[in-house]
Amino acid sequence: MEPGRPGGSGPAEPGPLPRGVCGAGPAASASSLSGAEAQIQRCALAVAAVLPAGGRGERMGVPTPKQFCPILERPLISYTLQALERLCWINDIVVAVTGENMDAMKGIIQRYQHKRISLVEAGVTRHRSIFNGLKALAEGQPDAQLSKPEVVIIHDAVRPFVEEDILLKVVTAAKEHGCSDYDLEFGTECLQLALKYCHIKAKLVEGSPDLWKVTYKQDLYAAESIIKERISEQICIVMDTEEDEAHVGHHFEEMLKNELNHVKVTSGSLCHPGRDLQQIILEQCYNFVCVNVKTSEFEETQKLLDVLKESNISILYPVVVISVHFLDHKSVPIGQEMENLMQIREFAKEVKKRNILLCGLLIYYPQEKQKLQDSLRQGAIIIANLIKERNSGLVGQLLVA
Amino acid sequence: MEPGRPGGSGPAEPGPLPRGVCGAGPAASASSLSGAEAQIQRCALAVAAVLPAGGRGERMGVPTPKQFCPILERPLISYTLQALERLCWINDIVVAVTGENMDAMKGIIQRYQHKRISLVEAGVTRHRSIFNGLKALAEGQPDAQLSKPEVVIIHDAVRPFVEEDILLKVVTAAKEHGCSDYDLEFGTECLQLALKYCHIKAKLVEGSPDLWKVTYKQDLYAAESIIKERISEQICIVMDTEEDEAHVGHHFEEMLKNELNHVKVTSGSLCHPGRDLQQIILEQCYNFVCVNVKTSEFEETQKLLDVLKESNISILYPVVVISVHFLDHKSVPIGQEMENLMQIREFAKEVKKRNILLCGLLIYYPQEKQKLQDSLRQGAIIIANLIKERNSGLVGQLLVA
Repeated sequence: MEPGRPGGSGPAEPGPLPRGVCGAGPAASASSLSGAEAQIQRCALAVAAVLPAGGRGERMGVPTPKQFCPILERPLISYTLQALERLCWINDIVVAVTGENMDAMKGIIQRYQHKRISLVEAGVTRHRSIFNGLKALAEGQPDAQLSKPEVVIIHDAVRPFVEEDILLKVVTAAKEHGCSDYDLEFGTECLQLALKYCHIKAKLVEGSPDLWKVTYKQDLYAAESIIKERISEQICIVMDTEEDEAHVGHHFEEMLKNELNHVKVTSGSLCHPGRDLQQIILEQCYNFVCVNVKTSEFEETQKLLDVLKESNISILYPVVVISVHFLDHKSVPIGQEMENLMQIREFAKEVKKRNILLCGLLIYYPQEKQKLQDSLRQGAIIIANLIKERNSGLVGQLLVA
Repeated sequence: MEPGRPGGSGPAEPGPLPRGVCGAGPAASASSLSGAEAQIQRCALAVAAVLPAGGRGERMGVPTPKQFCPILERPLISYTLQALERLCWINDIVVAVTGENMDAMKGIIQRYQHKRISLVEAGVTRHRSIFNGLKALAEGQPDAQLSKPEVVIIHDAVRPFVEEDILLKVVTAAKEHGCSDYDLEFGTECLQLALKYCHIKAKLVEGSPDLWKVTYKQDLYAAESIIKERISEQICIVMDTEEDEAHVGHHFEEMLKNELNHVKVTSGSLCHPGRDLQQIILEQCYNFVCVNVKTSEFEETQKLLDVLKESNISILYPVVVISVHFLDHKSVPIGQEMENLMQIREFAKEVKKRNILLCGLLIYYPQEKQKLQDSLRQGAIIIANLIKERNSGLVGQLLVA
């Protein structure tokens, strides 16, 4: 057994990071402080979680154990940890990993800045791994600052989409039925073992379809699509002007809101009073459209990129930024304008290192109203696609609508 | 009951369509004529399939029944039909659909040119639907040209990834065990019913993980990713010259082969003797890179598009075509070259209607060897991404490497 808090030696907690907010975020559908949650907090009920993660992933048909398989370049287990650590009422999360994966796991905790995580060595079976986790909690390892819990949630490392309400139900049921070990699987062997050997009352809590387990290779694809969908639910539009309300930039904003009606489109501002960009970042928005109205340069986009870099929002998910420019045929020919805007390649290369995916979008600005509408609609479609696909191979490209 | 052959009234069978080839194609991993298949053909064993497709898809959380949910814009059930109809030894495929979906189903059969399909009305339960299908086969409906089979495969409409070897196993086992109704599910209720009521011998045939069923919304995502992966396994490079072997086009071809080493890269030719493009299309290649070396125009790309349009290959899957051009700084400035190449937007718009996704790729051609290598590698990465994502929102774009 090797308990420890590798996260503690990581970088200091960044200021405006949304990570500090409990129970929020798109990858973890927010639920308001419910009765059950209030009860846990009022009773000061000590809750911990144990994650058996010693599996070798034989069924995946890939050499990497499934809990370490990357989704959007981040290991699956990090998504599961994120889903648990956002719940303030879980005091400790104990992960059981095999000796050979111990260092990799420490690296994951440090890189993705996970908190309240302790590691123990996995056993040869899932049940032994759970036992090792429970033992570490029962012994209240002083160096690991683990406190002895009243309720322990046993949760698979490969179920990243666990919702707070299910966990609250489990904890409440555990409190009522007096058992200390719960499992979220349907009709699981754990429940049967508990009933057979432990002389304790056990209760099966109904799960939701979201609680599914990543077992086969196709499940990894599904998980990636679900995660992409969840982080594409909100788009923030940043514009370098509020003065000239008649400008095409504002028509474009309207068009975006109309075309992307399944997405929450908010307006953020970098310099004017109004909806503050910091607040939008705190709400975990991963998609930004920067409309450069005043100049054909990248001034506003650069400011936005600086704010995003500082915020560390891209640690957990790739952030999409689309720098929008308008082409007025009267002033410059398209070829020259495209040549000017090609410098986006350099910006994109630099911010790609920070997990920010930057693309340019040049929108034709014809005089005729119908043609202009078509251009703007085409622009909105391209933006919707770039956000949905989150394709890192297209960074630095200048698209034309 | 409403048996009929809506496919029969569709367009005449196109000449070079790969659809005529049985047992081949990437979406249906090809298996050579095995012992079991030979046996079926030798014995002239009459085999039919019944697909219960009357489900309402309550578990999907979407209003469309899951068998009609689109994957790459084509309904799921069409993929399942495709998997069965490619097997020449299945004489008839009977699909049971509800009355309200009968017309939609006829439309699907016509649009995707499915063959040997008959429709019957679904019953109120899955078992009644199967019964209706079996009855239509037993009665040998003369107007539907159905022949009475010796073995009937019962296959879910929402299992698109069924492999030939599993079906052969099932048919062989059916022949040996003398039962006329088989089901591919593991431990299914059908098997239990057969054992309980029918006084027939039944045998459970081991399936494979590929046989999974689309049940929840996440399964649709997974199915889409698997299909995209399967149709991205082969790329055909078409070049407008074979004479000047030292040209950058050939370096680029080498680079593509190196970078995309998980993909089969073949060279096709439009005018020279060599590997014929028609043959490559017959092998169901859905990805084409057209390298325009001789001119900066779209001559070669247009020829390729004409061949693809004639072949009808894009009926079943979107075909990706990337028109590659090189930029020699000595001759034209990039802005002007980009402006010239913008006409790709018009071509792309036109062929999009035929399910062909056309993009342009302009590759820098610097003198310095290392920089040239970087450009070519970047081009290969962009191509790999365009093919993998098959993003219809990016058609007509000119990307720069």
